[in-house]
Amino acid sequence: MKYSELTEKELNSILKEEQKKYEKFVKAKLNLDMSRGKPCPEQLDICKDMLSILADKDLSKLYEIDPRNYGGLDGLKAMREIFADLLDVKTEQVLAGGSSSLNIMYDVVQFAMQFGILGEKPWNKVNGVTFICCVPGYDRHFAICKSLGIKMIAVPLKEDGPDMDIVESLVKANDNIKGIWCVPKYSNPTGCVYSNEVVKRLAKMEAASDFRIFWDNAYCVHYLTDNHDKILNILEECKKAGNPNRVYEFCSTSKISFAGAGVACIATSVENLADIKSHMTYQTIGANKLVQAMHVEYFKDAKGILKTMEKHAAFLKPKFDMVIEKLNTYFEDSDIITWTNPNGGYFISVNVLNGCAKDVVALTASAGVKLTNAGATYPNGLDDNDSNIRFAPSYPSIEDLSLACDVFATCVKIVCIKKLLNK
Amino acid sequence: MKYSELTEKELNSILKEEQKKYEKFVKAKLNLDMSRGKPCPEQLDICKDMLSILADKDLSKLYEIDPRNYGGLDGLKAMREIFADLLDVKTEQVLAGGSSSLNIMYDVVQFAMQFGILGEKPWNKVNGVTFICCVPGYDRHFAICKSLGIKMIAVPLKEDGPDMDIVESLVKANDNIKGIWCVPKYSNPTGCVYSNEVVKRLAKMEAASDFRIFWDNAYCVHYLTDNHDKILNILEECKKAGNPNRVYEFCSTSKISFAGAGVACIATSVENLADIKSHMTYQTIGANKLVQAMHVEYFKDAKGILKTMEKHAAFLKPKFDMVIEKLNTYFEDSDIITWTNPNGGYFISVNVLNGCAKDVVALTASAGVKLTNAGATYPNGLDDNDSNIRFAPSYPSIEDLSLACDVFATCVKIVCIKKLLNK
Repeated sequence: MKYSELTEKELNSILKEEQKKYEKFVKAKLNLDMSRGKPCPEQLDICKDMLSILADKDLSKLYEIDPRNYGGLDGLKAMREIFADLLDVKTEQVLAGGSSSLNIMYDVVQFAMQFGILGEKPWNKVNGVTFICCVPGYDRHFAICKSLGIKMIAVPLKEDGPDMDIVESLVKANDNIKGIWCVPKYSNPTGCVYSNEVVKRLAKMEAASDFRIFWDNAYCVHYLTDNHDKILNILEECKKAGNPNRVYEFCSTSKISFAGAGVACIATSVENLADIKSHMTYQTIGANKLVQAMHVEYFKDAKGILKTMEKHAAFLKPKFDMVIEKLNTYFEDSDIITWTNPNGGYFISVNVLNGCAKDVVALTASAGVKLTNAGATYPNGLDDNDSNIRFAPSYPSIEDLSLACDVFATCVKIVCIKKLLNK
Repeated sequence: MKYSELTEKELNSILKEEQKKYEKFVKAKLNLDMSRGKPCPEQLDICKDMLSILADKDLSKLYEIDPRNYGGLDGLKAMREIFADLLDVKTEQVLAGGSSSLNIMYDVVQFAMQFGILGEKPWNKVNGVTFICCVPGYDRHFAICKSLGIKMIAVPLKEDGPDMDIVESLVKANDNIKGIWCVPKYSNPTGCVYSNEVVKRLAKMEAASDFRIFWDNAYCVHYLTDNHDKILNILEECKKAGNPNRVYEFCSTSKISFAGAGVACIATSVENLADIKSHMTYQTIGANKLVQAMHVEYFKDAKGILKTMEKHAAFLKPKFDMVIEKLNTYFEDSDIITWTNPNGGYFISVNVLNGCAKDVVALTASAGVKLTNAGATYPNGLDDNDSNIRFAPSYPSIEDLSLACDVFATCVKIVCIKKLLNK
């Protein structure tokens, strides 16, 4: 239905109908949360056996170091090998850390602020340090910049990655641009996958020597279908292009084993890693290697991880399908909303009529359906179009999700029709 | 034996004898490590049952939040309660974090550098930020300062804590003194316990408003005997003295459950904690709560921890006794060496004749006995007297330790006699 082609009377009639529905939803006193990309309870049971896997192991002999004792800033070699396999890099390029890749990201940005990268000027002493933020993007990336006083320039994310014409011209013209946040595969929230051309252009472009690509490969194996998208190995491409130190790549098992209780890693050039470790060695004696040992014994290798991802997909795919189906049903050929249909990751990105996103999110909230704050996918929470909404279908049950979609559809119709009517 | 009262001939005769012994040790090709305060393999088995304790638990219902999922910046409430009990503070004053208290210390110092404390000027913008370092002290404390460019002033540690006359006059005179590192109970390395008077004076003294006491209570329950020393609750004393925000207290289960795979915490005023969390919330979604859950289920409460500490003492006490006995045997009434005899902790602090520590450590190393680097217990590794050596008896077996003491005694005699002979 093309709402813009309807008469005022027709719009008012639909509005009335949807408002009636809305009243019913409010009376039902729902309490549904689709705000964060959290695994659902069933997913948390998938790796249950990991919790006792070390019980009968002789941990004093299993690895190059006893995982119960101090030491090993790089993490357990066997854990680093699994990540190396997963990310197609060399083990010596990987540091396996604690549970949070966000924490590693924050720390390496803070290291750059305080100490500079590879002997360059500390970013704290550079006037107007700036990062490029692909939008819509991950709010916690932008929050790191905000926290540390780093300026942000939003660049549109297209279907195959950031708009590289804009990125290239920005980075070339401004030596104070020191970073770009990227979620290259099943991007948060659009689910887009970076094309080979985008990866190559990122690797080749002219940029400051201490410019870094923050390559948050959070969804590297988080497939929803058998269609396993592939992205180019950016560390390899940067090396080929003569910029071997340009990338910090991040990854974790948070949405593989346990959210917030997995193992995170950074993969980068050996030179970068030595630089990072030269600071990290003052910060910690090493991450929790027992948790790493649990993961090593349970997964064994990257194949073990891929097998686990199929179990996650079995829970996630029906939820994504449900949302897409509902949106199709409610909004076929509509001109007030568009949405993405990703092959992986944790999100569906929705765009409603400009100027309507905040009102939609507020209206669903009043009916007991919590969505991610409108604007959260933009630096400083500012979506100039007030159009983007992030859908996180993973956590609620399929029944709740169905209901949440019904509420959402009604709210979208109410807000957008009002907008069209200038009400 | 008073070496300084011996004739040159007598000294030469002992020297010759000890040099013969030394040659034998060298031929034995020993490989012993007493350099770090690491638990021994047997200690790592004490909490073995923790490794399977979550296997049959319904983790979705056990706590206020599923420890397998995201969230909970403060850590699990039950874990915070255990720490609160252990440190005699309120639960709301505690944040339970990852495995490393060093990491929390580093991060809060870095937060102060980057952002300032409670709205004060960031330390990065203060000219000549300085910490007081009690000496001999913990090398990794000093290393944090070195890494972040913080100046260090060494203040002697007496038997009941730092020399407070010096501390008070320094802190009063200099607003740029922003911190003091303290290990108040079974101090690393002397094993001293801060007296009530020292704690009260630290709490009361005049200092900059963003001056913080870094109270590393690493050995709060690490008793070797039934003589359980007590220290005053410094958070309480600071509150009484009108300086409620003066202390950051740290503690971890590293030497209780698993070294480097335990749970660390910070305890401080609610206002400080809110300040720290206002930065930490950008750094992480939360620490590994599954590891916290393992600890909660295993220990249950502070009493459970105290029971475990008795098991550690059963391994450690004989080792400390062995070292003390050997030192007594080799150096009764000697004037070339003194040592501490602590009731707890992980170290024995030894002082040899001034100007001899480095040579002793080098000589033992050449005979295959690795000690902590001489000077490591001083800021920037500089022990002006070149006298202090840190003994870490925990890791080697009792047989190895006995041998290491023999080698050490011979090396002390050789180096000190040479010094007395001006050789």
